[in-house]
Amino acid sequence: MSASVDPMDPVFALHRGGKLAVHSVVPLASREDLSLAYTPGVARVCEAIAADESLVYSYTWVGHTVAVVTDGSAVLGLGNLGPSAAMPVMEGKAVLFKQFGDVDAVPICLATQDTDEIVAAVIAMAPSFGGINLEDISAPRCFEIERRLDEALDIPVFHDDQHGTAIVVLAALRNTATLLARDLASLRVVVSGAGAAGIAVSRMLFAGGVTSGNLIMVDSRGTLHTGRGDLTAVKREMAELTNSAGVSGGIADALRGADVLIGLSGGSIEEDAIAGMAPGGAIFAMANPTPEVHPELAGKYAAIVATGRSDFPNQINNVLAFPGVFRGAFDAGATKITDGMKVAAAEAIAAVVRDELGPEAIVPSPLDPRVAPAVAAAVAEAARRDGVCRA
Amino acid sequence: MSASVDPMDPVFALHRGGKLAVHSVVPLASREDLSLAYTPGVARVCEAIAADESLVYSYTWVGHTVAVVTDGSAVLGLGNLGPSAAMPVMEGKAVLFKQFGDVDAVPICLATQDTDEIVAAVIAMAPSFGGINLEDISAPRCFEIERRLDEALDIPVFHDDQHGTAIVVLAALRNTATLLARDLASLRVVVSGAGAAGIAVSRMLFAGGVTSGNLIMVDSRGTLHTGRGDLTAVKREMAELTNSAGVSGGIADALRGADVLIGLSGGSIEEDAIAGMAPGGAIFAMANPTPEVHPELAGKYAAIVATGRSDFPNQINNVLAFPGVFRGAFDAGATKITDGMKVAAAEAIAAVVRDELGPEAIVPSPLDPRVAPAVAAAVAEAARRDGVCRA
Repeated sequence: MSASVDPMDPVFALHRGGKLAVHSVVPLASREDLSLAYTPGVARVCEAIAADESLVYSYTWVGHTVAVVTDGSAVLGLGNLGPSAAMPVMEGKAVLFKQFGDVDAVPICLATQDTDEIVAAVIAMAPSFGGINLEDISAPRCFEIERRLDEALDIPVFHDDQHGTAIVVLAALRNTATLLARDLASLRVVVSGAGAAGIAVSRMLFAGGVTSGNLIMVDSRGTLHTGRGDLTAVKREMAELTNSAGVSGGIADALRGADVLIGLSGGSIEEDAIAGMAPGGAIFAMANPTPEVHPELAGKYAAIVATGRSDFPNQINNVLAFPGVFRGAFDAGATKITDGMKVAAAEAIAAVVRDELGPEAIVPSPLDPRVAPAVAAAVAEAARRDGVCRA
Repeated sequence: MSASVDPMDPVFALHRGGKLAVHSVVPLASREDLSLAYTPGVARVCEAIAADESLVYSYTWVGHTVAVVTDGSAVLGLGNLGPSAAMPVMEGKAVLFKQFGDVDAVPICLATQDTDEIVAAVIAMAPSFGGINLEDISAPRCFEIERRLDEALDIPVFHDDQHGTAIVVLAALRNTATLLARDLASLRVVVSGAGAAGIAVSRMLFAGGVTSGNLIMVDSRGTLHTGRGDLTAVKREMAELTNSAGVSGGIADALRGADVLIGLSGGSIEEDAIAGMAPGGAIFAMANPTPEVHPELAGKYAAIVATGRSDFPNQINNVLAFPGVFRGAFDAGATKITDGMKVAAAEAIAAVVRDELGPEAIVPSPLDPRVAPAVAAAVAEAARRDGVCRA
């Protein structure tokens, strides 16, 4: 790992001084301005919120601000780098939130990797924010942290590594099914990787129409099936839901006759294994920077190939989801992110490219400005339908 | 208390949607931009910081960002309104930080008023910020919270209600002494109010040259002296330092023959009491919105009168201090705010108006753009002199 600062590297030049700033949206040129924005005028707003706490969403920035929270335990694919080294990623995420969703985002990098301490810190700071976006927190702690925060708080909590990825994969698979003239329910799907993303993607696919028994998850020791004695609680739960044929063995066994491979593991997958897939299917090889299967090789065996990389077609990138998800949640005054809102987000992403659909255009470009507004509108509508909005 | 939203009130119109926003300072128009600011480029910055944590101050926004932290227990003079109702004040503070100090500030309103929980939450979030500005936290918890955070963290921690006020009072008293042709050491000073601000102001005045034995503090039960059996630990400490004449009794006894009254109590002070002061002295009546002594009445007995209000001359306002204090600390890479840095800030504030000094101009206007840069330069120099800067 090259870990020093290269002054000629444009990445370091760009990052000098960071990527974010806070600014005022009110004037502050005169004593009169000061007396409205600060004392004594501000006291009237404080008193109004003290009498009706829900006014905090209308009369402060809380209603459009999300905390991007990490403990630095799983930074990109780099591992446990700690909170300071995670900051450039969280700032980048905040930049994307603003650019695409007009959501104000504050990076919060925590000095603890203890589940109880993380939950306590986020609950303590929660009145400052309208939503919590969890990021780059390693499994299995991320599941418990998200669940406990979701139960404790009345604002949306969203672990993007799980649900952002899951939403975009579902969007890509919907358009893939359309192109292949197949029902989602009939597709045989293999998910390589049974970490946080793999589990969230699988659950999202079930919510979106994939038949759970038709999906096989594979971890580093092979397929998840009910005969395995080495599974954690959450993997056991997935083993019971999925793989109704009870396929055992490794990735090659799982892929035999499969229509879709979704790579979320980071490990390389051999050509022999993908050669056994049903012809004319799809491979989403999303490990970054090195896909599980090189796109050219994948193209020999699949009609549709997607990756996480920007230099190949069909980039499956979370930025298609999270800005619009929070924008929509904020617009609707949602207190949580439901499965219905996530499915609606996936459908909205897929719909953006419906007219230009093709094997190299199953998802929009990450820079497509149509995406976030479409996602936001769909998510807000779903929030109202699901009855999770503040009165 | 009028606690509803008046749509005709310009304060509510101004506060609609809040007063702050986050924005990106890097371009994000192309895939190339995205690959520098976010993946894959950002990984190189993460790795560099993982190898040398001090780089977080140069290559992220941490180096110019302060958390404005409250628990909502002492919001302005309004009392314990809780975290949501405190947000408009914290946002206002953040606006002032930016406007005057070019410091990016993030309001953090905590859902707890437990000292241990506050300390734990701030320590947990500390890697996200270059400094911690504590605000509107009630005494005596504010002392312990500040002390424990200052010990635990290697970034500046500053309770503005204490030290910001103290810096500006010292600045005002320096210029008062000049106008009165007196040494600070010879002035007899009465501080009315022995809460957080009263204690911090007294200590700052000692650091700046006031003789501790010449100062008398007064709380709601009378003067602090060593004969009192009802004092808290911190008040007992102050009783031992101050009031070498052992004056007992009330505010009138304290003021008999005194040169300076500093009102930080909020309680009204009778004309009879101030009538006993030495002629030609000074009264700083800083309670807001109702000064302890009305400025017109104060003017009958004192040569120099200051308040906390913007509609009278000599407004003693913390905004003269905190933006420049943090700007200077950040510029120097300071790891704490020393007494030397605070005294330097006071001297810089006083010096700004030295050429225009007069009984109605002992401190600069809160909007004077010369102040923060002068304070920042003085604070940074003092930080280097005191040896508290990161290597």
